[in-house]
Amino acid sequence: MIKKLFAEFFGTFWLVFGGCGSALFAAGIPDSGIGILGVALAFGLTVLTMAYAVGHISGGHFNPAVSFGLVAGGRFPAKDLIPYIVAQCVGAIVAAGCLYTILNGANAFTTEGPGAFASNFYEMAGYHGRSFSMGAAFLAEFLLTAFFLIIIMGATDKWANGKFAGIAIGLGLTLIHLISIPITNTSVNPARSLSQAVFVGGIAMSQLWLFWIAPILGGIVGGLIYKFLLQKDQLEVAE
Amino acid sequence: MIKKLFAEFFGTFWLVFGGCGSALFAAGIPDSGIGILGVALAFGLTVLTMAYAVGHISGGHFNPAVSFGLVAGGRFPAKDLIPYIVAQCVGAIVAAGCLYTILNGANAFTTEGPGAFASNFYEMAGYHGRSFSMGAAFLAEFLLTAFFLIIIMGATDKWANGKFAGIAIGLGLTLIHLISIPITNTSVNPARSLSQAVFVGGIAMSQLWLFWIAPILGGIVGGLIYKFLLQKDQLEVAE
Amino acid sequence: MIKKLFAEFFGTFWLVFGGCGSALFAAGIPDSGIGILGVALAFGLTVLTMAYAVGHISGGHFNPAVSFGLVAGGRFPAKDLIPYIVAQCVGAIVAAGCLYTILNGANAFTTEGPGAFASNFYEMAGYHGRSFSMGAAFLAEFLLTAFFLIIIMGATDKWANGKFAGIAIGLGLTLIHLISIPITNTSVNPARSLSQAVFVGGIAMSQLWLFWIAPILGGIVGGLIYKFLLQKDQLEVAE
Amino acid sequence: MIKKLFAEFFGTFWLVFGGCGSALFAAGIPDSGIGILGVALAFGLTVLTMAYAVGHISGGHFNPAVSFGLVAGGRFPAKDLIPYIVAQCVGAIVAAGCLYTILNGANAFTTEGPGAFASNFYEMAGYHGRSFSMGAAFLAEFLLTAFFLIIIMGATDKWANGKFAGIAIGLGLTLIHLISIPITNTSVNPARSLSQAVFVGGIAMSQLWLFWIAPILGGIVGGLIYKFLLQKDQLEVAE
Repeated sequence: MIKKLFAEFFGTFWLVFGGCGSALFAAGIPDSGIGILGVALAFGLTVLTMAYAVGHISGGHFNPAVSFGLVAGGRFPAKDLIPYIVAQCVGAIVAAGCLYTILNGANAFTTEGPGAFASNFYEMAGYHGRSFSMGAAFLAEFLLTAFFLIIIMGATDKWANGKFAGIAIGLGLTLIHLISIPITNTSVNPARSLSQAVFVGGIAMSQLWLFWIAPILGGIVGGLIYKFLLQKDQLEVAE
Repeated sequence: MIKKLFAEFFGTFWLVFGGCGSALFAAGIPDSGIGILGVALAFGLTVLTMAYAVGHISGGHFNPAVSFGLVAGGRFPAKDLIPYIVAQCVGAIVAAGCLYTILNGANAFTTEGPGAFASNFYEMAGYHGRSFSMGAAFLAEFLLTAFFLIIIMGATDKWANGKFAGIAIGLGLTLIHLISIPITNTSVNPARSLSQAVFVGGIAMSQLWLFWIAPILGGIVGGLIYKFLLQKDQLEVAE
Repeated sequence: MIKKLFAEFFGTFWLVFGGCGSALFAAGIPDSGIGILGVALAFGLTVLTMAYAVGHISGGHFNPAVSFGLVAGGRFPAKDLIPYIVAQCVGAIVAAGCLYTILNGANAFTTEGPGAFASNFYEMAGYHGRSFSMGAAFLAEFLLTAFFLIIIMGATDKWANGKFAGIAIGLGLTLIHLISIPITNTSVNPARSLSQAVFVGGIAMSQLWLFWIAPILGGIVGGLIYKFLLQKDQLEVAE
Repeated sequence: MIKKLFAEFFGTFWLVFGGCGSALFAAGIPDSGIGILGVALAFGLTVLTMAYAVGHISGGHFNPAVSFGLVAGGRFPAKDLIPYIVAQCVGAIVAAGCLYTILNGANAFTTEGPGAFASNFYEMAGYHGRSFSMGAAFLAEFLLTAFFLIIIMGATDKWANGKFAGIAIGLGLTLIHLISIPITNTSVNPARSLSQAVFVGGIAMSQLWLFWIAPILGGIVGGLIYKFLLQKDQLEVAE
């Protein structure tokens, strides 16, 4: 079990360090910056790389909403939920601390303003110039996490080409970011949202509830959808 | 059968929600927007992810032109054509409704103008500043869907590395969008075109015929090309 | 044999239609254009998709320099060289004709200027504002094709993970374009260069020799390097 | 052994020629340039392509920090360390020489200024307008190389889907560049840093120590982390 928790710790560290890090260091540079596309790719690649690196150790969740969804879908024992989520949150916060340290070594660093330090938000117009309501933000986070779980449950199904799951799940997270960075800066991952809010405080902390409730609910619904509406039972496979 | 239809429903929902959603939320943001490249990637990743997630359930068409082409190529029974297409269209329209709902929660949303709400079009100069004739649009949609079917038929051929089909087909759709978003906003998928036209109406509805006829014709021709000009028969394999 | 030639015909058609097509339709659009990165991705995806679609039929060359290199490397019979190259050139020219037809249906189409109609060139400052000498262009095309053949020979080696060859080779072509579109508009493929020069004429035709000689020489050298310096013989494998 | 060294020579040549080459030729072109995202992709694809091409020959290190890390992790014999590193450094320098030759055939080439000729640096504001301290640069290079080794050790673990290692490791390098090009121009590879410094001299040479010490230390720590905290032993696997 301890190696599983280390795997979740390092995996979630990498997700926050790589995903939020690319956003903080490289997204906004004039002309040659990586933009939303590059950040979306970075988030996806953190999961793709760690899925192949430590997925065989812990299952590669790196996300409390995924752990909840896999319990709902019957793929993960509920008794392991708390230790996994603790390891994920600690990994995320340590990664955010490393980002904070590196940025402190640079000029012009601030944690003020909408989406500062790559935090999640709603009802604020960030760099994209548009503000989405709380309801729209909730719906987006809910739907995207539900589909994330459908992808995870399906790609790791024993009837699927399971070895490709790391690619499908990682690039699925890229896709989710391509859609929703302009809406909420994209959470679908309560640990990732927590880790940024801890350092930013203020509105990021007061809005944090949405980035726990919506993804976890979405994850549970996605897990249930796959289990009851999509997953083949033994009888169907025998056909 | 019901699980196959659910798979087509969720897969086509995801195609429209992810592909058109990324275009609507993230494409046009100044400086950091994902542009045509990001939208092309998003469309491809919707299919890549769902191919690995539910492809083993329904075959992963998510597109009436693909279903028609696979019938022509001898890979899909004609009797299942209607239920598959209904599930695809319903999934696409529900996804467009979710996009509409989220966008209603944002300021500055409109369904006016060429390509509004990610609809398909011809003979109009969209954001790219060039207008393509109806003939050029038809030829492009026809050719691209034909090659899409050649890729699908070939990558899932029993003599090919079938497990990679999800990658080849998904990234094939990305490639198709890289070529043709500036021409027609890229359909190659009648269900996707329908779902946007339903909400936009007007010209999007009156031009919809082309985005059903050209892709379906192209799909059928692509399926036949692979079957008769490319596919090895038993004799050749035995050589 | 006829199915192999059809496979090379359709594969090379797709390479020119997708690669040059994305450049012509989508590269230069202000703000949301796909730029050099998108064109590089498109070229690579044409090969990736066709490698999985028809690679099991013809071997998936789509390029005279590859066919020459595989002869040098001992993987392809010299007697099949001429029919393969004819099929490749015909496929490329027909694709260029389709692009020409679609562009004729658009306003503001021209075949004038450096790199027009996606043609290859040297000693001219294209859109990138820099001019490279004939020697620099020759060296770049030679080296890149040599490495392309090392990748192809290595990834399809019986001791390698051959099923991934389509990914490695396709994305290898993307990489080659990321490096050299600003130098020569990237050839490494005589059939692709020919097909554009046929429609553009003038300088594109008079410079065409370099885009046949340099890639073919590079391909042969790459094939020989892999065969004699890298490929394991039976004895080494037995160790 | 000689074929292994050729494999490391050609692989590291390709890493520098492709990664630094794309940066030098294609990154800074106005409007259509590939930017940081394209350069990050190019670096990753050099490793992805060579991992599948010659990885089965030498193991595919192409990087002294990787060789050190694999010794620490118990996957590579210490006695082969020196010849591997020599082959890597020679390959990198020859590649830099080829880039230098091609650029000498172009107008407007210089090796002056921060990051010129794609060299690594710290405490200087490059094109991105921000300057990072020596400590921040060291921490970033250390952490990123450590995680690079965790990815390499994990993806090639006998319990993992080893055939995907080339994808995970190559795209892992892309991710690393997405994060840190704006910090140090990204090294994580002493041979790559050396090869550019040789031609640039001056500050690039006097700062070179950091791009040997930090990546090698990070690589060793990453190898040890995987070996002792993550890798399953026989007993755990038997469970």
